[in-house]
Amino acid sequence: MAKFEQWEGFEGRLWKEEVNVRDFIQNNYTPYDGDESFLEGPTDATEKLWGKLQELQKEERAKGGVLDMETEVVSGLTAYGAGYISEELKDLEAVVGLQTDKPLKRAFMPYGGIKMAEQACTTYGYEPSEKLHETFTKYHKTHNQAVFDIYTDEMKKARHNKIITGLPDTYGRGRIVGDYRRVALYGIDYLIAMKKKDKDIYERHGMKGTDFRLREEVAEQIRALADMKEMAAAYGFDISEPAKNAKEAAQWLYFGYLAAIKTQNGAAMSVGRVSTFLDIYLQKDMAAGVLTEAQAQEIIDHMVMKFRMVKFARIPSYNQLFSGDPVWATLEVAGIGMDGRSMVTKTDYRFLHTLENMGPSPEPNLTVLYASELPESFKKYAAYISVQTSSIQYENDDVMRPVWGDDYSICCCVSATETGKEIQFFGARANLAKCLLYAINGGVDVKTKQQVAPAYRPITAEYLDYDEVMERYDTMMEWLSKLYVDTLNMIHYMHDKYYYESAEMALIDTDVRRTFATGIAGFSHVVDSLSAIKYAKVKVIRDDEGLAVDFDIDGDFPRYGNDDDRADDIAVWLLRTFMHKLRKCHTYRDSEPTTSILTITSNVVYGKATGSLPDGRKAGEPLAPGANPSYGAEKNGLLASLNSVAKLPYEEALDGISNTQTINPGALGHDDAERKENLVHVLDGYFDQGAHHLNVNVFGREVLEDAMEHPEKPEYANFTIRVSGYAVKFIDLTREQQMDVIARTCHDRM
Amino acid sequence: MAKFEQWEGFEGRLWKEEVNVRDFIQNNYTPYDGDESFLEGPTDATEKLWGKLQELQKEERAKGGVLDMETEVVSGLTAYGAGYISEELKDLEAVVGLQTDKPLKRAFMPYGGIKMAEQACTTYGYEPSEKLHETFTKYHKTHNQAVFDIYTDEMKKARHNKIITGLPDTYGRGRIVGDYRRVALYGIDYLIAMKKKDKDIYERHGMKGTDFRLREEVAEQIRALADMKEMAAAYGFDISEPAKNAKEAAQWLYFGYLAAIKTQNGAAMSVGRVSTFLDIYLQKDMAAGVLTEAQAQEIIDHMVMKFRMVKFARIPSYNQLFSGDPVWATLEVAGIGMDGRSMVTKTDYRFLHTLENMGPSPEPNLTVLYASELPESFKKYAAYISVQTSSIQYENDDVMRPVWGDDYSICCCVSATETGKEIQFFGARANLAKCLLYAINGGVDVKTKQQVAPAYRPITAEYLDYDEVMERYDTMMEWLSKLYVDTLNMIHYMHDKYYYESAEMALIDTDVRRTFATGIAGFSHVVDSLSAIKYAKVKVIRDDEGLAVDFDIDGDFPRYGNDDDRADDIAVWLLRTFMHKLRKCHTYRDSEPTTSILTITSNVVYGKATGSLPDGRKAGEPLAPGANPSYGAEKNGLLASLNSVAKLPYEEALDGISNTQTINPGALGHDDAERKENLVHVLDGYFDQGAHHLNVNVFGREVLEDAMEHPEKPEYANFTIRVSGYAVKFIDLTREQQMDVIARTCHDRM
Repeated sequence: MAKFEQWEGFEGRLWKEEVNVRDFIQNNYTPYDGDESFLEGPTDATEKLWGKLQELQKEERAKGGVLDMETEVVSGLTAYGAGYISEELKDLEAVVGLQTDKPLKRAFMPYGGIKMAEQACTTYGYEPSEKLHETFTKYHKTHNQAVFDIYTDEMKKARHNKIITGLPDTYGRGRIVGDYRRVALYGIDYLIAMKKKDKDIYERHGMKGTDFRLREEVAEQIRALADMKEMAAAYGFDISEPAKNAKEAAQWLYFGYLAAIKTQNGAAMSVGRVSTFLDIYLQKDMAAGVLTEAQAQEIIDHMVMKFRMVKFARIPSYNQLFSGDPVWATLEVAGIGMDGRSMVTKTDYRFLHTLENMGPSPEPNLTVLYASELPESFKKYAAYISVQTSSIQYENDDVMRPVWGDDYSICCCVSATETGKEIQFFGARANLAKCLLYAINGGVDVKTKQQVAPAYRPITAEYLDYDEVMERYDTMMEWLSKLYVDTLNMIHYMHDKYYYESAEMALIDTDVRRTFATGIAGFSHVVDSLSAIKYAKVKVIRDDEGLAVDFDIDGDFPRYGNDDDRADDIAVWLLRTFMHKLRKCHTYRDSEPTTSILTITSNVVYGKATGSLPDGRKAGEPLAPGANPSYGAEKNGLLASLNSVAKLPYEEALDGISNTQTINPGALGHDDAERKENLVHVLDGYFDQGAHHLNVNVFGREVLEDAMEHPEKPEYANFTIRVSGYAVKFIDLTREQQMDVIARTCHDRM
Repeated sequence: MAKFEQWEGFEGRLWKEEVNVRDFIQNNYTPYDGDESFLEGPTDATEKLWGKLQELQKEERAKGGVLDMETEVVSGLTAYGAGYISEELKDLEAVVGLQTDKPLKRAFMPYGGIKMAEQACTTYGYEPSEKLHETFTKYHKTHNQAVFDIYTDEMKKARHNKIITGLPDTYGRGRIVGDYRRVALYGIDYLIAMKKKDKDIYERHGMKGTDFRLREEVAEQIRALADMKEMAAAYGFDISEPAKNAKEAAQWLYFGYLAAIKTQNGAAMSVGRVSTFLDIYLQKDMAAGVLTEAQAQEIIDHMVMKFRMVKFARIPSYNQLFSGDPVWATLEVAGIGMDGRSMVTKTDYRFLHTLENMGPSPEPNLTVLYASELPESFKKYAAYISVQTSSIQYENDDVMRPVWGDDYSICCCVSATETGKEIQFFGARANLAKCLLYAINGGVDVKTKQQVAPAYRPITAEYLDYDEVMERYDTMMEWLSKLYVDTLNMIHYMHDKYYYESAEMALIDTDVRRTFATGIAGFSHVVDSLSAIKYAKVKVIRDDEGLAVDFDIDGDFPRYGNDDDRADDIAVWLLRTFMHKLRKCHTYRDSEPTTSILTITSNVVYGKATGSLPDGRKAGEPLAPGANPSYGAEKNGLLASLNSVAKLPYEEALDGISNTQTINPGALGHDDAERKENLVHVLDGYFDQGAHHLNVNVFGREVLEDAMEHPEKPEYANFTIRVSGYAVKFIDLTREQQMDVIARTCHDRM
């Protein structure tokens, strides 16, 4: 059993015998069911630093979205010395550490793909280094090159035609959350010792390739841990041993996260479930009288400031998919323990309170693990923050806890992952709406006229027959699911080979659980299209080559989003069927296939590539985001819409079911007090039905329209909205995406 | 069926339908059973170039063994432009192409291990590049680093204690012979097209990691083929299409080989079986009246000159193992076809004749594929060259042909491999003599006192009991064979990952056969020790710690090398037993385990690490090389010694059984005519018994002693001797190795 003087006063035994942060938390945290009245405003230091950061952000926006970029140094744990928000204010920073040497300067990260890294530079007027070009073309292969070496022609065609899309084959796959708390609780030396022990433990008889891969991975992890120490030392900290107080705990933990974002540029680089953990240290220091509430809040504020600063160099096509520079620095609060105790602590309040102390912000992607049994005062405070800032999202702890336990993190928008025990192989999405068109057109893409899928028999009848469509669609989904999984298998094999996440994996159990996270795009349109075919008369309009390019719908039909089982049953069928097909495929490293209904802002790009559909959506129009009903489909108010989405079984979409709703403040109540009460009722009702996720926006369409026309108004500088799966500053969206957001349903009645 | 105008006049069909050089040869070659009288002496060009090269070699020796070294450029197919033996004489070169930009300048090859590459530089006073150090430590991992990342502690200990030794874990594994003839016969474009076709062929349903690896390998091969074209273009040649005459055929073929030695630095980088193939082109041109014999010989002489120039940057510990800068540019002549026709052509004579035109030389490692049915005149000519130069070796085509067909190449010293259809995973050797000491000492190494093997019960009796020793030895060999294979599995996994031979594999079938070539060191000493224990009385002398450090032998015992079945049966048992144990192990990529009895010059280093043995050999003394009887053991003359070795079953040592013998010219005959007759009789008799290999030296001990004392004498400048598995310039050996060679038996009677 390990022993450190830093652990004095902590309870429990198991976490001392093995790396087990959950056990430490359960043995030591103090639930809090009081209200927010204890919270403190920002300190002088916070105001100064945040003021400085806001200046930098303004400058960044003025420069077209990028303040500064590295071209000569490859990002790595020890690539830079110390960096601060501002040299003059550096002593004010309660939590230090930057990705590069300067604030908001984007690192050069070529391992995912040198072309992407270089294009990111040239897009913003920076000249990539010739020397590094040589290194990453002649000497070190990148993940991108390797994947394209092995893709089949069919895969390339499917990718080009965007029926499989958003694949992480040009940058980091992300979605891996290191257990950054381990750095604070155990210190690096102990973690290295445990990884060395693992290397012995996994020394099996007659080792083969898969054993060799694991041994090499652990060796790389140990190297990364050693480098983390060096990285911290540049800031004057020795993280060999456990943190001895709250400030160190926050700092050590942040160094763990910093290691991740210095080495990987995945779309989602989440922070994880750190709130209850940090609270233990804050409580202890406050109980000992060495820390005030203002100081405690300052630590959290400064840490959050760092999460608000995370940036990656991206290319235009990436920004079109995921607009507004998101990094999914997702961070959870609340939830209920396996023993039934609320896991809400004062620090959960403190994290939400950062949105008041420093104003709204898309990052960190603050996520409330919701359960109706959470303390009423906390639910109300969260609802109040939602009403004020539209910056937080809610996920149903009651459906996730039975699957992932009480120490999971959200590794992107909506995807749960057991902290320190699990990773995801992220898999973007298959466009099931396009797949429906392929079923009708015998595998030919209406946009490119290419034969993308196998040349199955097309539908030639003038009017679509439901049974015929369903049969063809089943066959086409079978093809798509297999091709999709085969493609992802290649990506993850090569990612492990050329862009392994040693720093993150060093903070995760060696015996890791792996899920294989696929995704669905165009969900609501398939449901409504099938409903139209079944309940109305859909006539096919064909071009000269006989391709179905449009549809005439005669008669009315039920639509998903109105609590009408006729449509909603199709939705459930669709999810179950696709998930079933995915389960039939072999997945890399025997990972567990899951799926999500989640498109983030990519619904706009996906829509552009998708022809007209039998539900009346015209070619090129955005798809509805995530699991949202289609624009204009919801006719029966917010609650009916929520009821429809709540019917989707979470066990068939363990990677998450994203639902984004906007309600007019007036519809929610006459004043903030009434609004927060009502929002809590909405959330209780929705989640008690087993729904998974809700993004809550509280504003009217007129605000969006005004912000689009007058982005220069100061009130819109940090105006944050929840879009599918994350939050974004509205003025950072492209006009096209702003139009899309405005087109979404804004409920004017409950 | 492919069609090229360059193929006009060639017979056969199959080789046009698929890549099949063997079929081309069998359909087009002209056996020759005449004598050597047609041969021509060196042309002026040859004399000038060879003169220049000898000057450079002299300069190289004067500079301590290395003439020049690259430090700033990483070796690769297109790393340099054209290079020539001499700028002034470059128009005289019938076959062009250097490894680097200058003759005898050694390339910088870091992929196997950056430390080794850098140490090679500093050893000879060159300063390695800091930039490349950064590239191969920070950005690109080397094979060496990767292997050490995954070795177990037990493996490291076994390696350190040299019971497993000579492992290819710091440089290229070598022993892969590309079918360089394909470049000449098909041209690069056709080969690329065929590899692309393979990529389709191997596109299987539900592809997994092993499929991905193969696809990536083929992608790398295609890239290498494209680079070969670029490499050749720098010399003004377009190798897209087949060679159209003999000069081009030699040049195209050499470019294929040049691609191998520019990208890999394996111990053995063999040329393969090219003689009969090239003869087809030479014959065709001569028949057409466009080539004279002198020109034909010039092409072969110049090509051989290039093979004599191959160099790699090595480190001192490597040179101790493999002394005299060998590269095993092994090249075969003769052999019998499956249809019974002799494959001897005029060009087989021409290759042997290079030893006359340009004097003796260790490289290329000229190998006669011997059969008593070969034309008498050819056998006599080869024997004559042996008597004159001691530069060639003989391998038994009659035992190899049934296993490997009639188009195999020798990929190192003695190891057959089907040309273009097979590769070896080279595996160095296990020291079975040391293993016997471990059996006696319960796994403790007498030299380091470390517990290397499992702590099995040691033998504690004063006198060794044969049955007890055999039981313990069996257990210890079981441990050793498993550990040995496990270690090699790791090496080859990482070699494929970090130092894949794309240029060589591009010239080999995608559906390649793989053997797993292990090896045995200390063979004769184990046999004699067991014989001593069985037939004499062996008393153990133990140190203070109870370790057996020496042995007193009371009485006589039969020794291996005297045609005495009592000893020779033990030899056969030992080989069969170890091979059986190897077969029990899982081998990487389901390769077929084989073994060799072959130590090259490493017998000296291995001996240094091995304690005293029960056969009377004292601690530190060299082991006998390869399958040779121990020094001084042979009491009954050359033929008895050969008879003993001939009893070893080739099917249990498919990687080869190396035997090196020296006979005094006087014992062989009164004049050269008698000597060549007698040598042919010796070879016929030896090989007709099923023996595998013979290195033939014809000189007396006094010549060696004189050469050791007076290396400056001009007659010793190119004085070449056959040592275990290869030839070497005697004056290039270390004094220690020279002493070892002198100590070997020189037969003064038949």
